[in-house]
Amino acid sequence: MLKNRITALFGIEYPIVQGGMIWCSGWKLASAVSNAGGLGLIGAGSMHPEVLEMHIRKCKAATDKPFGVNVPLLFPDVSLMFEMIVREGVKIVFTSGGNPAKWTSLLKQNNLTVVHVVASTRSALKCEAAGVDAIVAEGFEAGGHNGKEETTTMALIPAVRGATPLPLIAAGGIACGRQMLAALALGAEGVQIGSRFAAAQESSAHPAFKQKIVETGEGDTMLTLKKIMSVRLIRNVFFDQVRQLEERGATTEEFQALLGKARAKAGMFEGDLEEGELEIGQAASIIDAVKPAARIIGEIVDEFESVFREMNRSIGR
Amino acid sequence: MLKNRITALFGIEYPIVQGGMIWCSGWKLASAVSNAGGLGLIGAGSMHPEVLEMHIRKCKAATDKPFGVNVPLLFPDVSLMFEMIVREGVKIVFTSGGNPAKWTSLLKQNNLTVVHVVASTRSALKCEAAGVDAIVAEGFEAGGHNGKEETTTMALIPAVRGATPLPLIAAGGIACGRQMLAALALGAEGVQIGSRFAAAQESSAHPAFKQKIVETGEGDTMLTLKKIMSVRLIRNVFFDQVRQLEERGATTEEFQALLGKARAKAGMFEGDLEEGELEIGQAASIIDAVKPAARIIGEIVDEFESVFREMNRSIGR
Repeated sequence: MLKNRITALFGIEYPIVQGGMIWCSGWKLASAVSNAGGLGLIGAGSMHPEVLEMHIRKCKAATDKPFGVNVPLLFPDVSLMFEMIVREGVKIVFTSGGNPAKWTSLLKQNNLTVVHVVASTRSALKCEAAGVDAIVAEGFEAGGHNGKEETTTMALIPAVRGATPLPLIAAGGIACGRQMLAALALGAEGVQIGSRFAAAQESSAHPAFKQKIVETGEGDTMLTLKKIMSVRLIRNVFFDQVRQLEERGATTEEFQALLGKARAKAGMFEGDLEEGELEIGQAASIIDAVKPAARIIGEIVDEFESVFREMNRSIGR
Repeated sequence: MLKNRITALFGIEYPIVQGGMIWCSGWKLASAVSNAGGLGLIGAGSMHPEVLEMHIRKCKAATDKPFGVNVPLLFPDVSLMFEMIVREGVKIVFTSGGNPAKWTSLLKQNNLTVVHVVASTRSALKCEAAGVDAIVAEGFEAGGHNGKEETTTMALIPAVRGATPLPLIAAGGIACGRQMLAALALGAEGVQIGSRFAAAQESSAHPAFKQKIVETGEGDTMLTLKKIMSVRLIRNVFFDQVRQLEERGATTEEFQALLGKARAKAGMFEGDLEEGELEIGQAASIIDAVKPAARIIGEIVDEFESVFREMNRSIGR
């Protein structure tokens, strides 16, 4: 299997990062992915600082391998979280949303490896200026929050590759070995996979949401809430409510009133499949079962290697 | 270079198809692409039958290599066009829009090779049932007309590959060798490239539109007109007019009134960059110059081969 700047940067076996996801990626999922040779990330976006602290401690107890924490920079407790992350000896932080310039130097001073998630080449260049160690470039097909420009992974990755020499991780629409191989062809050196790990056995997601991911087919998700903060959702009652607000040109306050009722927790953690907010990527359409994280990684790596061998047979060199 | 079912099906050197595009792909572009080892397509969508007949005759005179015609099935003169296409001895037809079941058997009876363009796995299965020879699966990032489900090339191609054994051509967001290699990793056996050939020297597009394609950057296109027939457009005055209609929930008649004024011809053929309709894919962001079709193919093939060699060096087997 390949060794490159991403495996070297994190000290991992496979250049596969498990995306930090609210209500899905606690210490159980992160440690399972890291123990299987990928990079597990605890998703701090749905955690109070003391909950995150507990997850970090349990993760350290559950694995000797490298793991990281994903921190959305737009959350209010960011400063407290980073203090605690440094105190707990976490070595890798992925930041998303917000401005990498504000926090990167502080984190680097504390010897953390810092990766920032972007959805455009322009943002990738800001990351380079901020001094991050690597970039995740995430396409329109990704679940969760997303850029406004709707640039897809196919279009985005070669553009970012051409614009900055930083180590580059591709995200958005990636769940299998074929897609990982495609990401590397596009110029990435690793992949960040969210949806498929959201449906892993070790994910904290409610079993009903995991089953819903398995059943989600092509065309069943849609990028929405573009006026507030774009997010890709499975179509359900909540999605229809959002769409109705959008169609009648509702105000930001009206959207916030609809969203304010812990809809994401209700959907993804408590399993309310109709009134809850169900964030997932287009890759959900090729996820066909709930499996342990180690088996997911094994399947991705096996498919990656066998498709690459096939390509070598069919392409004369 | 690779030989596979797509090169064999069309009798071409490289599995690169130049997409049939209104106002861009007449006999000059199609014959230039075919002469350079790809498959050139005359785009019948903007032609009256007698104009198409002239283009076919000139294309036959300009190349001894295989070429084809792209016929949008929703146009009114389809039956007349197919009669003439058969009479003129064209061997390859790409159909798009509409139902492949209606025309495929007639075309096959006349010994034509038939390829249909789809944006979903469901449509791909309909093509298989209709008896087409191959499929183009086109992702959300493509220019021109497009599916409603917004499935991207990264998500679509492995799904179609898994659903049908038909020879598969990937389209949407593909303009360079890295992207072609990614398409093959995803399971396609060839690529259809539109935007980059729209900006070719031999394209019939107005020079101002070609220059506009070169200048188009990331985030400068948007899929719009979803209520009528989705199309990806460059943002300009016309695009803003469409957006205003959409935001106030305009009727189909209002959209048709706005569109009815030959806006596509004005934009792409006559070079009205503000009041005209400018259809292009997200791949426009990586197109940096107007070049001859043969040089475009040469660059794509060179990059494809060099990136594949790089991957072989970095991935241990």
